[in-house]
Amino acid sequence: MIQIFTGNGKGKTTAALGLIIRALGHGWRVCLIQFMKKDFRYGEIEQLKKLSGIDIFQFGTDQLIDPDHLSEIDYTEAEKAWEKARDVILSDNYDLIVLDEINVAVAWNLLPVSRQLELMALDTSAELVMTGRYAHTEVLEKADLVTEMKEIKHYFQKGISAREGIEF
Amino acid sequence: MIQIFTGNGKGKTTAALGLIIRALGHGWRVCLIQFMKKDFRYGEIEQLKKLSGIDIFQFGTDQLIDPDHLSEIDYTEAEKAWEKARDVILSDNYDLIVLDEINVAVAWNLLPVSRQLELMALDTSAELVMTGRYAHTEVLEKADLVTEMKEIKHYFQKGISAREGIEF
Repeated sequence: MIQIFTGNGKGKTTAALGLIIRALGHGWRVCLIQFMKKDFRYGEIEQLKKLSGIDIFQFGTDQLIDPDHLSEIDYTEAEKAWEKARDVILSDNYDLIVLDEINVAVAWNLLPVSRQLELMALDTSAELVMTGRYAHTEVLEKADLVTEMKEIKHYFQKGISAREGIEF
Repeated sequence: MIQIFTGNGKGKTTAALGLIIRALGHGWRVCLIQFMKKDFRYGEIEQLKKLSGIDIFQFGTDQLIDPDHLSEIDYTEAEKAWEKARDVILSDNYDLIVLDEINVAVAWNLLPVSRQLELMALDTSAELVMTGRYAHTEVLEKADLVTEMKEIKHYFQKGISAREGIEF
């Protein structure tokens, strides 16, 4: 099954993290691939690493990606993440595979949507979860489950900025 | 700050679990109160218990609640959960407090909405997260952040039922 968490609201990556915790609780083997690690301070990754049964692979740089000024390394990291995702899906070593922010990598043209569809077409018994806003229509069509995290109200609108421990 | 995860889509409780993992990763003290533990098989709870820095309190029974045939114990459990929530919020012992499914407890009249608003009005420096579909309008108005998990597409529509490791 393929699940998508998309939309402009909070909770896409965090919902995937929750699924990971649930799956580990059932003794599943889990793999998390982060396509665009935007920050090295992510507290949740350190926490997940303490648990057994999960492998984590991070790609991208510690710099925020500017979609209007993509650099060579953004492309090569996205490509490396894609290759790792393909290998992991084909390995049959995992029951749950989370491709974090792959939707954004495609939306920002770091990867053509055809590459994402290619991953979705691979033969696997693993549950596949893909996160990130701007999920492509073709991706939504192919997915089994799509949830849109929709921002109804946000304190950022009141001028409050991202808070450590909550947003990252 | 008060955050709400509501809507008919997946990922409300799981997003809260993800926030818990993130917060623990930052060394925060976390409390999870489940208003309507519907099942004793929840893998994620066993997993969370392995981590340090979190206290978990579960209320409700192992039976599915039927909102059209509420029993005495459903009410007393909801009341106990509410009291625990109030004590925990006032204790100042936690940085993140998750009240899981409190929105549903109110929607099903196990608690009047005034009790939920009362919790929201308590003076605390903790981050408060309340989950569950059917969040009351007055609750949404008082909250700082509201995310609606919206079901766009779901394999349940295809007749596939809840799967262990994924839905519970």
